[in-house]
Amino acid sequence: MRTILIAMNGVTGRMGTNQHLVRSILSLRSKGGVILSNGERVMPEPILVGRNAEKLEALAKQHGVARWSTDLAKCLADPAVEIYFDAQATPLRVAAVEAAIKAGKHVYCEKPLAEDSKSALALATLARKSGRKCGIVQDKLFLPGFRKLKQTIDSGFLGRIISVRCEFGYWVFEGDLQPAQRPSWNYRKQDGGGIILDMFAHWQYVIEGILGRIESVSCTATTHIPKRVDESGKWYDATADDAAYATFQLEGGILAQINSSWCVRVHRDELVALQVDGTHGTAIAGLRGCKIQHRANTPRAVWNPDIPSEIDFYAGWQDVPDALNYPNGFEAQWELYLRHVANSNDDAAFPHDFVQGARGVMVAEAAMESWRGRRWVDVPATRLAEGA
Amino acid sequence: MRTILIAMNGVTGRMGTNQHLVRSILSLRSKGGVILSNGERVMPEPILVGRNAEKLEALAKQHGVARWSTDLAKCLADPAVEIYFDAQATPLRVAAVEAAIKAGKHVYCEKPLAEDSKSALALATLARKSGRKCGIVQDKLFLPGFRKLKQTIDSGFLGRIISVRCEFGYWVFEGDLQPAQRPSWNYRKQDGGGIILDMFAHWQYVIEGILGRIESVSCTATTHIPKRVDESGKWYDATADDAAYATFQLEGGILAQINSSWCVRVHRDELVALQVDGTHGTAIAGLRGCKIQHRANTPRAVWNPDIPSEIDFYAGWQDVPDALNYPNGFEAQWELYLRHVANSNDDAAFPHDFVQGARGVMVAEAAMESWRGRRWVDVPATRLAEGA
Amino acid sequence: MRTILIAMNGVTGRMGTNQHLVRSILSLRSKGGVILSNGERVMPEPILVGRNAEKLEALAKQHGVARWSTDLAKCLADPAVEIYFDAQATPLRVAAVEAAIKAGKHVYCEKPLAEDSKSALALATLARKSGRKCGIVQDKLFLPGFRKLKQTIDSGFLGRIISVRCEFGYWVFEGDLQPAQRPSWNYRKQDGGGIILDMFAHWQYVIEGILGRIESVSCTATTHIPKRVDESGKWYDATADDAAYATFQLEGGILAQINSSWCVRVHRDELVALQVDGTHGTAIAGLRGCKIQHRANTPRAVWNPDIPSEIDFYAGWQDVPDALNYPNGFEAQWELYLRHVANSNDDAAFPHDFVQGARGVMVAEAAMESWRGRRWVDVPATRLAEGA
Amino acid sequence: MRTILIAMNGVTGRMGTNQHLVRSILSLRSKGGVILSNGERVMPEPILVGRNAEKLEALAKQHGVARWSTDLAKCLADPAVEIYFDAQATPLRVAAVEAAIKAGKHVYCEKPLAEDSKSALALATLARKSGRKCGIVQDKLFLPGFRKLKQTIDSGFLGRIISVRCEFGYWVFEGDLQPAQRPSWNYRKQDGGGIILDMFAHWQYVIEGILGRIESVSCTATTHIPKRVDESGKWYDATADDAAYATFQLEGGILAQINSSWCVRVHRDELVALQVDGTHGTAIAGLRGCKIQHRANTPRAVWNPDIPSEIDFYAGWQDVPDALNYPNGFEAQWELYLRHVANSNDDAAFPHDFVQGARGVMVAEAAMESWRGRRWVDVPATRLAEGA
Repeated sequence: MRTILIAMNGVTGRMGTNQHLVRSILSLRSKGGVILSNGERVMPEPILVGRNAEKLEALAKQHGVARWSTDLAKCLADPAVEIYFDAQATPLRVAAVEAAIKAGKHVYCEKPLAEDSKSALALATLARKSGRKCGIVQDKLFLPGFRKLKQTIDSGFLGRIISVRCEFGYWVFEGDLQPAQRPSWNYRKQDGGGIILDMFAHWQYVIEGILGRIESVSCTATTHIPKRVDESGKWYDATADDAAYATFQLEGGILAQINSSWCVRVHRDELVALQVDGTHGTAIAGLRGCKIQHRANTPRAVWNPDIPSEIDFYAGWQDVPDALNYPNGFEAQWELYLRHVANSNDDAAFPHDFVQGARGVMVAEAAMESWRGRRWVDVPATRLAEGA
Repeated sequence: MRTILIAMNGVTGRMGTNQHLVRSILSLRSKGGVILSNGERVMPEPILVGRNAEKLEALAKQHGVARWSTDLAKCLADPAVEIYFDAQATPLRVAAVEAAIKAGKHVYCEKPLAEDSKSALALATLARKSGRKCGIVQDKLFLPGFRKLKQTIDSGFLGRIISVRCEFGYWVFEGDLQPAQRPSWNYRKQDGGGIILDMFAHWQYVIEGILGRIESVSCTATTHIPKRVDESGKWYDATADDAAYATFQLEGGILAQINSSWCVRVHRDELVALQVDGTHGTAIAGLRGCKIQHRANTPRAVWNPDIPSEIDFYAGWQDVPDALNYPNGFEAQWELYLRHVANSNDDAAFPHDFVQGARGVMVAEAAMESWRGRRWVDVPATRLAEGA
Repeated sequence: MRTILIAMNGVTGRMGTNQHLVRSILSLRSKGGVILSNGERVMPEPILVGRNAEKLEALAKQHGVARWSTDLAKCLADPAVEIYFDAQATPLRVAAVEAAIKAGKHVYCEKPLAEDSKSALALATLARKSGRKCGIVQDKLFLPGFRKLKQTIDSGFLGRIISVRCEFGYWVFEGDLQPAQRPSWNYRKQDGGGIILDMFAHWQYVIEGILGRIESVSCTATTHIPKRVDESGKWYDATADDAAYATFQLEGGILAQINSSWCVRVHRDELVALQVDGTHGTAIAGLRGCKIQHRANTPRAVWNPDIPSEIDFYAGWQDVPDALNYPNGFEAQWELYLRHVANSNDDAAFPHDFVQGARGVMVAEAAMESWRGRRWVDVPATRLAEGA
Repeated sequence: MRTILIAMNGVTGRMGTNQHLVRSILSLRSKGGVILSNGERVMPEPILVGRNAEKLEALAKQHGVARWSTDLAKCLADPAVEIYFDAQATPLRVAAVEAAIKAGKHVYCEKPLAEDSKSALALATLARKSGRKCGIVQDKLFLPGFRKLKQTIDSGFLGRIISVRCEFGYWVFEGDLQPAQRPSWNYRKQDGGGIILDMFAHWQYVIEGILGRIESVSCTATTHIPKRVDESGKWYDATADDAAYATFQLEGGILAQINSSWCVRVHRDELVALQVDGTHGTAIAGLRGCKIQHRANTPRAVWNPDIPSEIDFYAGWQDVPDALNYPNGFEAQWELYLRHVANSNDDAAFPHDFVQGARGVMVAEAAMESWRGRRWVDVPATRLAEGA
């Protein structure tokens, strides 16, 4: 049994505590750690790092974590620490991650990797040069629906993929008749709100992780609901985009049309519906489920507006069954990352590196540039500098 | 009882015979004609016009039509003829319609009005100056689903409209394993094929007739299936676009995202699903049905990928019931047009004029320009020249 | 954290103990008190007041309440006590409430405010002059069904409201074949029984709180079941009204027809069904649920007794979904009242004052006068005397 | 086989032609006439009477009726004519019926018997004195639902009847978004419109025919929708009452609360729901069906707004099954009337005499007087003058 010490920075927040500390690291510990492909067993051990001693102490005590610290530099200087994990607010990320790599740590961090693509690419270059194993959180890839989609694609069911349609969204209430389901800062540009910032980093890794490289993007966005009511019952100006309508050109000539909206009423199986059409078949993935239809049983629809169609277009689809008891997505990726760090035989299964992290930032930037410029914007293939 | 003589040109084709002659004019005759708002009754009487005497004679005999002619000029010179109807191939339309207007006839014709917007606008200007009552076929507006959508909007159910999503399409088989459901020329550019040409004239009048004026368009299209098998069983190169992904900016800040595809498998109620979201409610129209959901019963969806949602998102929708026994859309529009020609009191109900026809051509042109230029293209408001 | 001391008089009874002490005040204490809109936190602390020392001591011990007293005068003289709460028998209420106001306390009390409208209006006038914050219990307004109804009305779904139909009631067994579900005093006039007294105070605030001011009432009542069996198994004469059939004229020309009965078998969703029809839509509220139908999907019913209707009239309705996890109605109103007392910024949300309490008594009186006089009786708008 | 000659006056209208001529008299003829209780067979033979010779001739020819006439006086003078039937417009009825009785005819006529109760009672007195067998159409009593209700009452299922609730109505569209389902004159006072005039004659015979004598009535009505769109698409002022809310006091202390409305959305089994509660059981009748619940299976409802009720209140009802293949109501009553005329042994089964007809007019008058006077109005027992 080998122990890996992880300095977890910024886990006093809701996501950091719940998903990374409790439902990932502590969960893996309670299962006896991670078994590598060579049979060895690895046990992660967290050190909670942050700026607020009181919160850190309380969190450590609550979950029986032995070590915590407010001194990041000291943690990074400790040769026993192998991994640095960063879930801080985005503006703090680049400096801390850079310091960690320079201190020789492997680094795993939350998205977005940086506030701009230049910084993100610089980190990716640094990571490559350093030889450290650096990873970015891409938890949605580990959801059952998207795993079933990937499995369906890998099985050859779809043939050549030709197009993608995706509807994401639901109605976020304005807050007057009933409280909103999301925090009000999501709707204020000045507070980091906006659906492009929130969702396009996800779309990047879902698309590139499952379907292929993004070559260019056309995006338009808007603020459909200009006034909302905040947590204290007061009306405020919604200044951030609350819906974005995008089309992506992927390698291989695939077109992917993706709508993201907090102002749409839902007539689908789930809050996300990602339809991938191929020459041989089609799959529609949600968060949990995935439905498929093959050309062998595609109904023969005929365009005749005069009479009601006799075809039940929902009936010709089949659910992809569960292939396993799907774990929490964050935990699943942590497990992969720990195997990646601990054993070079397990590297192949961990493609979620800083180049991927940088591309998430690049795609969101390109989408916003497209919106402003009212034209398609290319997202260049990411080639790191010579020597990187 | 007043009789109105109509020279029907180009009705030996499938659409002309079935929809315009048999299911519209002859159907109205069998019902005793059209009753105007002033109580008067009008009976349409067709003269079949075309180039093939044999076909015309056979058609006239089959349906008990008394008169037919291969001499269009003579028909137009006959003062007893009040209306000229044109369902010829598009390249022949402009000259014939121009001649008819100059001969003092009212003109009704199939879409597209012309092959290019310049010619179409010229015809619209001529029509306006002449004072003749000129109309363009916009049959889809008369389908039950779109009528229910319009009625729902008029009822105030939606509040302020914010966005539109539309999926049109189905899988048109390649022709190898089973015959294709559409003629092969649809997939050859050189033969006038392509889904933009086929569908965007429809989208123009559906959008502008129900939702508002189109201000600009972003469109990208492609040929997803490059090889198909024709009616004779031979493989051919598909050179025309078989899918188009468009976003329209409408007046009032409405964004409309519309996909048209012959390469998509269907997981919807009908071959068309046109979802219109408003601040107060949402409607989803198909060809026949229309479903609605109000903000008062919009479910409170929460984004939590960890657990399956407990909400059945299909359950919160209600069908708009039939308000009448909906007639064939072509017949319904013919009835409106005959009332428009016969009685100026009935003019208000007929907005389907040549300006509308010209806008259909303009929107398709703009979409193709956007595709080529990879950018948004504006569709100017249509103002006819001074004196028109 | 600010503590508010409340003298709770008459909470040894079933309703007082369960709803006001345990499920409201003690529940709020266990949640850490009430957070005001200005961020401050308020903790209610009860003193149990009553006439029976033994009962009070037992109740205090059972629920861990520190203080109790049989000396109301002393409690009212204690400047530390901020609120007086009264849940005594109605004949005792006026004197105690008057004394409390004069002692400078804020007062919250159960309905009815008094036995007659003159006394009730006098208390309302005294409350207004004193500047004390006085409130009346109107718990039914906080039930999920009526909250959903109010939310639906506020959303504009109904358009202009035109009429109201309400069925309240169920079959209260006579007591011979099976025991009655209600106490026998409910059916004896001489013991304060009768359905008008029981229900019309509720109807007043439900109607005026949700729909508009009551202008006049027509009511007829009766004793449908003249003999019942009491708790000891003996037959007795039922002297009180057990069903009342009323019509209310509301401001804005709304007609509200409301039946209350303990002698009716139930063919509805819930024991209450309150249907509100408007020009644009209709809502039917029960205690928990609320169903709606809009004019956009109102079925086209045709009166033809010759043939069975093809319409399923239940199918065209949609449930208003839960907007939150609805708390107990008594607790919800206590929380509002405590915020009202503690912070003038929160006053707007508390309209349940003594004028409302007085109107409850007035409406019940008017209904009884209408019954006796067999005619409509007006309920004047309540304007307190000059200076009040 | 005995033939009875009937002068049918006013059957060129829609109701007269369809219900009385075709679906009653001609239908009975096609079945071989009516078999009396004494075994004799009677064949009705119509003479069509009216003012428009053209219409009469066409109607007679269309249905193979041998005789028609525009000379009523001559028909009445013909001793071969035994029955005079009147379905003229109401203002013409009294004089014609009076003349027929004086000419010695039996008389059967449509409701209302007269425009005012004084004239109606005079006709009833004349009928009684003359000894002629006079009847009034009360077709709704012959609908399956009401027949099942009567059968249920007669079976003793309900015990002592205590109360009646009735909802009649549906939403008649305003005519703007979709055409109205009723003619516009229904909504104009000046054209004889109004729901009290339309429905209360029906309520009188349904109540008095099934439940007991009406002693007094309290009624309020209104015009909920003040503007509607007529058959030609124009807005008009709705001047007649479109909803009436009434309570009736019946003999035996029964209270009957009856709503009639053209402005209500329907959440019931049928357009009419007539609930009759009795000490032993309850029945709810519609036009076609009837549901019952006995005290033996009445669920034990408990009033507890805190928690959702566990009882499905719809489940405890049972349908009364069809007892026969119910004929058209008009035909069924015609058959009874012909037996009444032809055979004194069959008299008991025909209580639908002119006294009943007069009471229909009296009840509608009393309801309108109650509405105007805002008070209960008595409907005296109908005792005809001495000698009558």
